[in-house]
Amino acid sequence: MALIEPFDDHYFMKKALQEAETAFELGEIPVGAVVTVNNRIIARAHNLTERLHDVTAHAEMQAITAAANFLGGKYLTDSTLYVTLEPCQMCAGALYWSQISRIVFGAADTTRGYQKMGTQLHPKTQVTSGIMETEAAQLLKRFFIERRNLN
Amino acid sequence: MALIEPFDDHYFMKKALQEAETAFELGEIPVGAVVTVNNRIIARAHNLTERLHDVTAHAEMQAITAAANFLGGKYLTDSTLYVTLEPCQMCAGALYWSQISRIVFGAADTTRGYQKMGTQLHPKTQVTSGIMETEAAQLLKRFFIERRNLN
Repeated sequence: MALIEPFDDHYFMKKALQEAETAFELGEIPVGAVVTVNNRIIARAHNLTERLHDVTAHAEMQAITAAANFLGGKYLTDSTLYVTLEPCQMCAGALYWSQISRIVFGAADTTRGYQKMGTQLHPKTQVTSGIMETEAAQLLKRFFIERRNLN
Repeated sequence: MALIEPFDDHYFMKKALQEAETAFELGEIPVGAVVTVNNRIIARAHNLTERLHDVTAHAEMQAITAAANFLGGKYLTDSTLYVTLEPCQMCAGALYWSQISRIVFGAADTTRGYQKMGTQLHPKTQVTSGIMETEAAQLLKRFFIERRNLN
């Protein structure tokens, strides 16, 4: 029998998804993120663009700021970001500056994701995608259906 | 004799340059920005990445947040950003989301500027470049020379 490893990508993406659910409850596009160092969560955030009237308040941006604040330095070279949706140009650009070691995202954003837009990550950054993508995408889909029905 | 128009691009870029000088005095890479609406400055900011230990604290990002806060809405569709250096991927990505009507920058950033990196601006956004570029570039050059001599 294999040993159970509780702190895997699925575990932390589930935490990011809980942040996305909090955003959903606030009427925000449901995207959530956590940052880890050595399997410990050092930052949690969710999208707050509507509440703050601020296009820069994406989950990833807040998570980067919070993680750097926790670490006391601006570089995230030993950190992993878990985010439920593929980062946009802005967030990928911020991750570039942070020199983050790893990015794990859930659902792909085929229209405004950094891959489609051609945004460059830092050469040191490794990327894993598709972790809990169905759950992340379904939450987004449910949000937009409900919002359409309200209007 | 032509009428003097005091509120031209040169006038507002000079204000952005004053912000860059403030950054210089704080030991920050000297980049400054202002946001205007109808020839009125509604936000001023300078780079604070070192002081805040935060890669997201570029002058433009703070100016976008401050301008949206002033306006009470997240879109900057009637605003102009003046910034002394060409925006990076992150800042251009934020400007994309803001739908800002116009960007005026001073010096080009041929290595990490958004043009070299291929970052997409919003289709509604107009760009003017090269305003006071010599002054902006010289301030940056002086900063890096002084910093090199300190190390």
